[in-house]
Amino acid sequence: MKSRKVGVWLIGALGSISSMVVAGAAALRRGLAAPTGMVSVLEPFGRLDLAGVDRLVFGGCDIRAGSLRDEAWAFAEKTGALDQRILQQVEEDLLETDRHVGVGTVRNCGDAIRRMASSVDSPRVSVWEEIVRIAEQLRSFKRKTGADIVVVVNLASTEPPLAIDERHLEPDALERSIERNESEAVRASTIYAYAAIREGCPYVNFTPSNGALPPALVRMAEARGVPVMGNDGKTGETLVKSALAPLFVCRNLEVLSWEGFNILGNMDGAVLENSANRESKIKTKDGVLSRILGYTPHSRVRIDYVPSLDDQKTAWDFVHFRGFLGTKMTVQFIWQGYDSLLAAPLVIDLVRFAEFAARNGESGLMPHLASYFKEPLGVDEYRLQQQFEMLLDYARAFSGRKGLDGPSRKSATGVN
Amino acid sequence: MKSRKVGVWLIGALGSISSMVVAGAAALRRGLAAPTGMVSVLEPFGRLDLAGVDRLVFGGCDIRAGSLRDEAWAFAEKTGALDQRILQQVEEDLLETDRHVGVGTVRNCGDAIRRMASSVDSPRVSVWEEIVRIAEQLRSFKRKTGADIVVVVNLASTEPPLAIDERHLEPDALERSIERNESEAVRASTIYAYAAIREGCPYVNFTPSNGALPPALVRMAEARGVPVMGNDGKTGETLVKSALAPLFVCRNLEVLSWEGFNILGNMDGAVLENSANRESKIKTKDGVLSRILGYTPHSRVRIDYVPSLDDQKTAWDFVHFRGFLGTKMTVQFIWQGYDSLLAAPLVIDLVRFAEFAARNGESGLMPHLASYFKEPLGVDEYRLQQQFEMLLDYARAFSGRKGLDGPSRKSATGVN
Amino acid sequence: MKSRKVGVWLIGALGSISSMVVAGAAALRRGLAAPTGMVSVLEPFGRLDLAGVDRLVFGGCDIRAGSLRDEAWAFAEKTGALDQRILQQVEEDLLETDRHVGVGTVRNCGDAIRRMASSVDSPRVSVWEEIVRIAEQLRSFKRKTGADIVVVVNLASTEPPLAIDERHLEPDALERSIERNESEAVRASTIYAYAAIREGCPYVNFTPSNGALPPALVRMAEARGVPVMGNDGKTGETLVKSALAPLFVCRNLEVLSWEGFNILGNMDGAVLENSANRESKIKTKDGVLSRILGYTPHSRVRIDYVPSLDDQKTAWDFVHFRGFLGTKMTVQFIWQGYDSLLAAPLVIDLVRFAEFAARNGESGLMPHLASYFKEPLGVDEYRLQQQFEMLLDYARAFSGRKGLDGPSRKSATGVN
Amino acid sequence: MKSRKVGVWLIGALGSISSMVVAGAAALRRGLAAPTGMVSVLEPFGRLDLAGVDRLVFGGCDIRAGSLRDEAWAFAEKTGALDQRILQQVEEDLLETDRHVGVGTVRNCGDAIRRMASSVDSPRVSVWEEIVRIAEQLRSFKRKTGADIVVVVNLASTEPPLAIDERHLEPDALERSIERNESEAVRASTIYAYAAIREGCPYVNFTPSNGALPPALVRMAEARGVPVMGNDGKTGETLVKSALAPLFVCRNLEVLSWEGFNILGNMDGAVLENSANRESKIKTKDGVLSRILGYTPHSRVRIDYVPSLDDQKTAWDFVHFRGFLGTKMTVQFIWQGYDSLLAAPLVIDLVRFAEFAARNGESGLMPHLASYFKEPLGVDEYRLQQQFEMLLDYARAFSGRKGLDGPSRKSATGVN
Repeated sequence: MKSRKVGVWLIGALGSISSMVVAGAAALRRGLAAPTGMVSVLEPFGRLDLAGVDRLVFGGCDIRAGSLRDEAWAFAEKTGALDQRILQQVEEDLLETDRHVGVGTVRNCGDAIRRMASSVDSPRVSVWEEIVRIAEQLRSFKRKTGADIVVVVNLASTEPPLAIDERHLEPDALERSIERNESEAVRASTIYAYAAIREGCPYVNFTPSNGALPPALVRMAEARGVPVMGNDGKTGETLVKSALAPLFVCRNLEVLSWEGFNILGNMDGAVLENSANRESKIKTKDGVLSRILGYTPHSRVRIDYVPSLDDQKTAWDFVHFRGFLGTKMTVQFIWQGYDSLLAAPLVIDLVRFAEFAARNGESGLMPHLASYFKEPLGVDEYRLQQQFEMLLDYARAFSGRKGLDGPSRKSATGVN
Repeated sequence: MKSRKVGVWLIGALGSISSMVVAGAAALRRGLAAPTGMVSVLEPFGRLDLAGVDRLVFGGCDIRAGSLRDEAWAFAEKTGALDQRILQQVEEDLLETDRHVGVGTVRNCGDAIRRMASSVDSPRVSVWEEIVRIAEQLRSFKRKTGADIVVVVNLASTEPPLAIDERHLEPDALERSIERNESEAVRASTIYAYAAIREGCPYVNFTPSNGALPPALVRMAEARGVPVMGNDGKTGETLVKSALAPLFVCRNLEVLSWEGFNILGNMDGAVLENSANRESKIKTKDGVLSRILGYTPHSRVRIDYVPSLDDQKTAWDFVHFRGFLGTKMTVQFIWQGYDSLLAAPLVIDLVRFAEFAARNGESGLMPHLASYFKEPLGVDEYRLQQQFEMLLDYARAFSGRKGLDGPSRKSATGVN
Repeated sequence: MKSRKVGVWLIGALGSISSMVVAGAAALRRGLAAPTGMVSVLEPFGRLDLAGVDRLVFGGCDIRAGSLRDEAWAFAEKTGALDQRILQQVEEDLLETDRHVGVGTVRNCGDAIRRMASSVDSPRVSVWEEIVRIAEQLRSFKRKTGADIVVVVNLASTEPPLAIDERHLEPDALERSIERNESEAVRASTIYAYAAIREGCPYVNFTPSNGALPPALVRMAEARGVPVMGNDGKTGETLVKSALAPLFVCRNLEVLSWEGFNILGNMDGAVLENSANRESKIKTKDGVLSRILGYTPHSRVRIDYVPSLDDQKTAWDFVHFRGFLGTKMTVQFIWQGYDSLLAAPLVIDLVRFAEFAARNGESGLMPHLASYFKEPLGVDEYRLQQQFEMLLDYARAFSGRKGLDGPSRKSATGVN
Repeated sequence: MKSRKVGVWLIGALGSISSMVVAGAAALRRGLAAPTGMVSVLEPFGRLDLAGVDRLVFGGCDIRAGSLRDEAWAFAEKTGALDQRILQQVEEDLLETDRHVGVGTVRNCGDAIRRMASSVDSPRVSVWEEIVRIAEQLRSFKRKTGADIVVVVNLASTEPPLAIDERHLEPDALERSIERNESEAVRASTIYAYAAIREGCPYVNFTPSNGALPPALVRMAEARGVPVMGNDGKTGETLVKSALAPLFVCRNLEVLSWEGFNILGNMDGAVLENSANRESKIKTKDGVLSRILGYTPHSRVRIDYVPSLDDQKTAWDFVHFRGFLGTKMTVQFIWQGYDSLLAAPLVIDLVRFAEFAARNGESGLMPHLASYFKEPLGVDEYRLQQQFEMLLDYARAFSGRKGLDGPSRKSATGVN
């Protein structure tokens, strides 16, 4: 099935992650770079008949005016992280993607995001009208690119948390709420997800925004045979946390305090300066410890905006623990990584796995992708190693067979 | 079987680890401290009928003159890590153990160790005579304490590496070499292990000294029904390494360099100032990365003596890795822990598991204890999580039955 | 003048700094410890005829019930930082000081502090009545101890900032405001300082609370011949900052961002959890950079409460700077120190220098003590080295003469 | 005197520092970058009539074949530290310099350096013949470029230490030794320095190689009216050390241990893998602490080669100190800087100051440049701040006058 053409529709298409997804896929296709950082190319996944990276075509939407091509260059110049000769050679690919970028929505995303928008929808446009508008963009993208399927990935800035109530639990309730145009019951991410699921497009929420996949939408995805997954790509500090925290369990050492300080300077950081938006992020980061340790130590996660760092996220984690005879000891780590370059290969992985799941007839949540997320929906396992074993187990189940003959899992949901 | 009395014979009985093992066990027995740092008390191991910590009696040997009781106090005063009131209340227990400490051997341990010895055996004493002398100490300790079984744990300073040759592969060859009194073919650790196995005492090598369990002795242990395991307790930097390195595998990130700098100020550190002794230590620390990653990045492990740190081992690890599009990123960690207090609870764990294995009729290597060692003999698995699963699997195999009804594994050796 | 008896009246006498001041002075007097951390014992200050540490007698006030002796023991047990045998030998000294601790005031200190108070003054007590009450405590302390002079040091928890207005500029205006009982114009620290100056007691504000030494009180001190100084003892992160920041000036490197994250677990930390109180602290810490660099880089100072750390303040500072050809580089530091043990010797120093200044006829601010403070009143020099030179210059001015023959500086104020 | 043309002759002209010196000066001349990192552009030095950066012309020698232009590009591509558009615009300047690069000498530089040499002098060439050959290169460079003066800067790889004996103390003795062709009495750096001084070229030793400026050569420089200075440019870890160590003096805190671990991956690092060469480097780094503290704490400086880091030197320093009542505390720092980009602006500074000194009639050592060196010859002051004050004092002495009217200091030597 390497010949299938897969459309990738990126929400936040003009952001730095998107620019690295598109530039990276082009670089791989042109043989300019190795697929380091992509998990789906590892040997165990060879038995899955995943779509070739060279068969991906990109488009999407954004709330800002601008150009993916310009964003990629700005990224390279500000960070110094990229070999600029790569960008020169994928210029065409970036420009081609720019032709497929439409206008997004900022509904209920908070002032921090709204201020960046190039244009804001008239308040008279209803929720339903916006869903229809996005759905049309998806159809149009599929038609123009000739893609066999479109996978939607949410890479937009973090929204303020959505208060989940009755309307978000069952598909019917959510539909009625939308019919009544109860704007406060949705956020932009809800509109995108609703449109994607309605159009049969697999949907991945790479952001912490909990409006994207409330239970009602997961159920709708199950009913319509659409695979979905989220929340919040696990790229940096939380990734290390999920690898390191099990150590304390394996040694029966008691974590007293785990304090994490993140500083970063990209647009993600700028949006998180706003406390409402930051709340979503800190929430997904913060659950990891309690889940792994089985108790809740003193813990704090701070994310601060430091413009000079651009995309180079830096995190200091201070872990204070108690050992034998009550003695206190510490381990600290300092993480310095380019956020967008850590995220981009995971996005390509997720697109490939989601397309495969759709082809395989899966619907609802994809728990085998837990290792990719800070808050893996429907999954209780937060330890990185064990999450990765879940992905390996998934691949093993297809061993010795053709991809589509694998275990057809109609639903893998674990919505509680 | 909680009523069985278990003799614990510590090689290096006057060192700081030993003092914390004995003080810690006494504190637990007297209810002065929680068993934090001990793994064997965790729920999954409740189904194993492990010997009670209050049933352990301690003795051992050392090459230095001195007192366990004084060492414990010196440790508390220099480090400030302990509540001194605990020591006051276990004074009796420390003094009691002091009565069971005999004289060890420094044969072929290198000058650094020899210089610390209170007395040195006459060069005319043969290898075999030394084995007999140690064996008599073991028998005498068992008789005087009324122990049902004696478990031997090597906590002595690191020896220079022993060059393994034909004489160390088969029991017969080793025996003949000893008969011929080929002193260069053994180190002190070989003599202790030989005596222990000959006396039917389970033997644990908590040090990097490879003279302790060459293949010939492992085979002898199998033949005589004695469980043994080593090498080198995994307490600090390597522990973190074995938890963190799998992250790079799970994300297909390429480790370019992993540089580890350890500083410490206890006697272990002083001995490691000597390059011959240090070689053993660095060797066991260094294999972990290659085994986990599947390739060998640039790597360096340094251990330097910094007297002011006493027992507070501090390690800085700098990890340089390559991500998507060739970008270089870093993660660093700083570990600060009291070496002896990290080691002591593991020693108690190992005694309990080894006694159980002996009772259960196991012999030769105990691979389920891999998570405790930097270089787990006969085990290819170096990832901490997976090693811990091996221990859980071992416990699960006894589920729902009495300990002694569990799977009687006559040999678990994997000597290559 | 080593025979003069100097009363030291500590505001916040039951806190951990106070307990270490009193225990430390006693330990020095009894020859149990070296004066490490005290600057006034260095050779250049030998020419000043400073009061002997063995001539200090201690008392003070607190808003909490409790005992200095118990606080010292609690400190030793929680932190493990002290040799407990020292405490055993100064038991008497601690109990003696406990006899001289009166009740303080919480007026306008914010809820965080008020909640800790053992009793709260009736709202009907006027500002003036409180001043009188404190002044009486000072007189009584002097009389009972037979001290020749009493030096007052404010070690109380940080108050919320006081909004400085017309009433705080001139002594007359402040006095009228107090006559009118305008409670909102003062904080507890104002009351203590007013009482001290009125009683002719040199006054040192070791806290960030700006209510302690508004211009009106500095002027009053000048008029009454009383030396005073503040604000905010420079003990940890800011100390390092004031040593390191000049490096960037000396190399013409441009600091882009300087982000400081402090975590601590003592009562100071608990009070700073409260945002109103924290504001004072962050303000004094934050001015250092701009003053030294001559421009204001992106900068953030966070102070977070982490109970498990107790007194062991830990700070991570991340400095991002630009070098040749626009290249970005970093230096980070991690500071781990016992806050109270860093502060205590400075408090003793300040008492000795303040007593000397009084004897020497100085009045108003003591700019030569700038190196001790995060925000040295009346001083523009924030570089540690240069501040220390100011202290050396002060000592040099007395070279070859008796202390009291030195340059009699009637006023050294620089209030703007 | 901004119109004077100053030839800059770089030993190690094809190395990364040289490439950044030449590229940087060209970028400044063309207005492509700000002079960040250059001290000589600061306001206080405006009163000195320093040569304009646009008046510098570059040449030099190297032992390797290659091209400065290629080195600059390799640097930019490997490190990502530079905006490559700058390099594109200074292409001409780099190529022009390449035309003025001759062949150096590897005499007694050790195997590590010799192995890199493109050609090795015949062993029959005498020391004197080599001096003459280098002197001719200097004359030829001056003639071809039309420079008014040539300043020589040693940027070559670190040589093994030269054992100083009678022959290195007085000019006569050294000359006789050279006449007798006692090769073992010189290293390459001696030959360069001898040639430079003989030609009247100010000479700066930016490396730790002690063969460059033994007392005999300093005396010769004095006699011939040539200003010289060294050793070892202070760019990274030692720079921080010299700013931070005085803190412990200012607070009477006792440094117990100061352990420094440096890792780097450029050619400098590769050469330092060789223990003979490393010895020189560690020696200059190690003296700083004792000089500043007045005592010698436990201290270690390690420099290890980590190829993946390229030019990005990373250092971890762990400082253990004792405070009040004997308590131990720590401060650690992590420095990450591009070594060549830290060095390059200092090289330009030193050229400008050396040319000025020559014009001003100075000869022998230039102690006012102490802040630039790890081991400032003839200077006892190792504290960064105070060293910088020495440079400011030097500038102040010319205040209000023309440069050449300044204090003509015939000799500022302090050779012991």
